[in-house]
Amino acid sequence: MLTTMPQRADIEQTHRTIAPYIHRTPVLTSQSIDALVGAHLYFKCENFQKVGAFKFRGGIHAVVTLPENLKSKGVATHSSGNHAQAIALAAKMAGTQAYIIMPETAPLIKQKAVAGYGAEITFCAPTLEARESTLAEKVAKTGAHFIHPYDDYRVIAGQATCGKELLEDVAELDTLIAPVGGGGLLAGTALAAHYFKPQTKVYAAEPSGADDAYCSFKAGHLIPSVKPNTIADGLLTSVGQKNFPIIQEHVTDIFTVDDQEIVAAMRLVWERMKIIIEPSCAVPLAALIKNKAQFAGQHIGVILTGGNVDLGKLPF
Amino acid sequence: MLTTMPQRADIEQTHRTIAPYIHRTPVLTSQSIDALVGAHLYFKCENFQKVGAFKFRGGIHAVVTLPENLKSKGVATHSSGNHAQAIALAAKMAGTQAYIIMPETAPLIKQKAVAGYGAEITFCAPTLEARESTLAEKVAKTGAHFIHPYDDYRVIAGQATCGKELLEDVAELDTLIAPVGGGGLLAGTALAAHYFKPQTKVYAAEPSGADDAYCSFKAGHLIPSVKPNTIADGLLTSVGQKNFPIIQEHVTDIFTVDDQEIVAAMRLVWERMKIIIEPSCAVPLAALIKNKAQFAGQHIGVILTGGNVDLGKLPF
Repeated sequence: MLTTMPQRADIEQTHRTIAPYIHRTPVLTSQSIDALVGAHLYFKCENFQKVGAFKFRGGIHAVVTLPENLKSKGVATHSSGNHAQAIALAAKMAGTQAYIIMPETAPLIKQKAVAGYGAEITFCAPTLEARESTLAEKVAKTGAHFIHPYDDYRVIAGQATCGKELLEDVAELDTLIAPVGGGGLLAGTALAAHYFKPQTKVYAAEPSGADDAYCSFKAGHLIPSVKPNTIADGLLTSVGQKNFPIIQEHVTDIFTVDDQEIVAAMRLVWERMKIIIEPSCAVPLAALIKNKAQFAGQHIGVILTGGNVDLGKLPF
Repeated sequence: MLTTMPQRADIEQTHRTIAPYIHRTPVLTSQSIDALVGAHLYFKCENFQKVGAFKFRGGIHAVVTLPENLKSKGVATHSSGNHAQAIALAAKMAGTQAYIIMPETAPLIKQKAVAGYGAEITFCAPTLEARESTLAEKVAKTGAHFIHPYDDYRVIAGQATCGKELLEDVAELDTLIAPVGGGGLLAGTALAAHYFKPQTKVYAAEPSGADDAYCSFKAGHLIPSVKPNTIADGLLTSVGQKNFPIIQEHVTDIFTVDDQEIVAAMRLVWERMKIIIEPSCAVPLAALIKNKAQFAGQHIGVILTGGNVDLGKLPF
């Protein structure tokens, strides 16, 4: 059970631990998107990951490495989306109970999926305060172990395996780019590049309506979001305490894009690649399109984070 | 230039001829859809084919095997959709001009794609008569060679390579299932199974709103559609003269499904597999879901024909 900043060997061990549970997702390319961006893009398709998102990597890692005396009491988390599904499925695979606190406003498709994995759902008001207090009650009552969606070294190490695979599967990447919400994936990606391919630069992309990572990165200290508002509903959270120092040290720059740019990039992937990605997942491509002069001719790994979209509420 | 019913060696030669131009598309599986159908499904993803549909196989085959004196005058066809894109891209690759007759009602995304490949588009009224007369004028004026969307042995041989690949990639299939519109893909699939894996049974699926293949198959003679009406806009055409005898001889049965069943199957693939398929493409899965008792426990190859959807006009 990893409680310190993941080292190279920790990430290697994490990858071996979770390999039997995860999909090694494919890397796709698109000639027409390459032509549009003027670079060579390699899309790591975590929309094809179990539960439809990279979050399963961190979730399954945290759950299966729990000591038996903790695991037997179950695991708990609060999440509006993919982390909830990740913990629910991970608990099912590990033979324990998941307790998930979800805001009443969580997309129906995500509620259904969580319930389908056998998790117990408790709904709460859609505020961080309500989520945290409802979770605290549930943990007090059940003794379940809380797994934070991103501010947790086990989760960061799990998410790092995604970038590690991409760096293994595409030989010479100049750049890796990932979206940033709480910073679990971004910190993991930055560590993967640092340990396994230090010449590859890591960039992040963030919705301008939830730009706390951008502001924090530029200011040099954590500035949490106030009333974030973006269609990229997986990126509303503010960067975590454990995530930020890793990002500060190993990320080259952070870009912001607005919702219109996000929807355009999402639509481009749907139309040209015939794969389904959620709005949060389109943020890095939107940033590359917006800043294409800077990346001209480069070989760029783009992490496609997830494909869980409420088809009844599409932005086009 | 193939002008007779494709034999085994013809399909092998066709595959060698077109291999440098096409994608060998992946075969995907879905645990959750398998659980729902109660069988093992292997989805051949022609939505990832060039132009987003299997039609490119037949189109490129017809164009690249044209003798030089014919090819130099260009190629022409009428199509509201994927065949138009296929001929447009094939002509571009072969260094000749494509003349495409499209009904004014063709989806915008398909119009744009055809134009993007450098084809000359002539719009006409959305009737078969208008399409045929406009095409005849264009051919008379330019000397271009007409390539029929399905009633053509070169096209049938091209489409056969899709089933051939699937039979090569998944060792023991009990069943292959494809949608049927004009019957190019179905006749090709039936020939591929007949020549390369005769123990694999071939089934077809058709929208009940355009059930001419079903009616013809049951009656034993061609009965063209009258005013077909279905969301599966790639399957509106009636089965061709060259296609029907092949279907009669080598297809085991044809199922029909209504538009509601088609949309439900389409949505299922979008949600569970995170890939984009068009309504016509969902017809075989809809038929398997409807007739699942008959296929319980089987290993079934399902041809996913295409992914060209107008995202502005989705049925959910």
